[in-house]
Amino acid sequence: MNENQIREIVARVLSSLDNSEATIPVEASARHVHLTKEAVETLFGKGTTLTKKRDLSQPGEFLSEQRIKLVTAKGEIANVAVLGPERKAVQVELSLTDCRTLGIKAPVNLSGDLSGAGDVYLVSECGIYNATKSVIVAKNHIHMTPTDAAKYGVSDSQSVKVRVKTSRPVTFEDVIIRVNQNFALAMHIDFDEANACCLDKNSKGKIY
Amino acid sequence: MNENQIREIVARVLSSLDNSEATIPVEASARHVHLTKEAVETLFGKGTTLTKKRDLSQPGEFLSEQRIKLVTAKGEIANVAVLGPERKAVQVELSLTDCRTLGIKAPVNLSGDLSGAGDVYLVSECGIYNATKSVIVAKNHIHMTPTDAAKYGVSDSQSVKVRVKTSRPVTFEDVIIRVNQNFALAMHIDFDEANACCLDKNSKGKIY
Repeated sequence: MNENQIREIVARVLSSLDNSEATIPVEASARHVHLTKEAVETLFGKGTTLTKKRDLSQPGEFLSEQRIKLVTAKGEIANVAVLGPERKAVQVELSLTDCRTLGIKAPVNLSGDLSGAGDVYLVSECGIYNATKSVIVAKNHIHMTPTDAAKYGVSDSQSVKVRVKTSRPVTFEDVIIRVNQNFALAMHIDFDEANACCLDKNSKGKIY
Repeated sequence: MNENQIREIVARVLSSLDNSEATIPVEASARHVHLTKEAVETLFGKGTTLTKKRDLSQPGEFLSEQRIKLVTAKGEIANVAVLGPERKAVQVELSLTDCRTLGIKAPVNLSGDLSGAGDVYLVSECGIYNATKSVIVAKNHIHMTPTDAAKYGVSDSQSVKVRVKTSRPVTFEDVIIRVNQNFALAMHIDFDEANACCLDKNSKGKIY
């Protein structure tokens, strides 16, 4: 077989790969904060706990009725979602666009990794919480069960490329697989990434 | 040659492709407007012309000293750049993030294509211009000379994929090649796309 014949075969293989179905739901995560019990009490009053407004796609996680304002010397963003339940560390997840608005230098980290995280003040009607080392730009990732992982041939912590199929398709690299029995299949990207690919509610991704 | 041998060759070819250098400068276009002579006079006074603040990367194009405010029923964005020279049609180039802020439904179009374009009011200190059918989200594209086109093996109007090499690499599809003797080599993306890939001043793209 000569090189040209191989090229033709490869072109056919690549073309068939590109046409296979994209099946991973892709969700845009809006800016939000996770709070500790202490931060909740500082911001919303002693003895207060977060009240659930609606469940999120990952089991146990919920959008609360509470909202806070982010404040820095450079600017502020109001009406920011607070997710529950309470966590062991305050974590503020913003897009790079938000970080520019607020003048915050924040790293692109996986949720839970606060190394190098930025500073911001959280402000509510009844309190202010100084959230130092809390701000990250959430690195994109895919939640899935062990069954999903077997289906897609990937494993926990693996880095993959994902093409998001939209009117403005984009391929993201170094997307991290997160496997847990309790997860629901979903890729999470931030609003910059969602707007860059014109994401809509039915957009699906495909692992490469 | 059997399938496994072909696979190995293909893997080597793909790997060599991935390691070759990214050489196309990538620039983020901030939101801006192009105005007609009539719009300039409405906004800045009879007989006024745009005054140059600095040249842009494409020969002849410049950032003017003038700034305007975009206004809709839903919101406003102040201090928006006006590019010169004057054009035959008013064109407002926003990111999808901006369009959400202003509640404008705008198409992703190549510059110059106002089909389906959105509406916005342009406001200055001395006038208001009703810019109907002017708002687009600029489709990403690469400016290059015929010499560049020959080097990259592409032609005017061709659609290519471009991987932008950054700390958060992203591959954009359907990037349009624009060839003109007067162009300077540069890929233009909007701020959503720039933030999605953490673009910095030295980021380069590679055509696939």
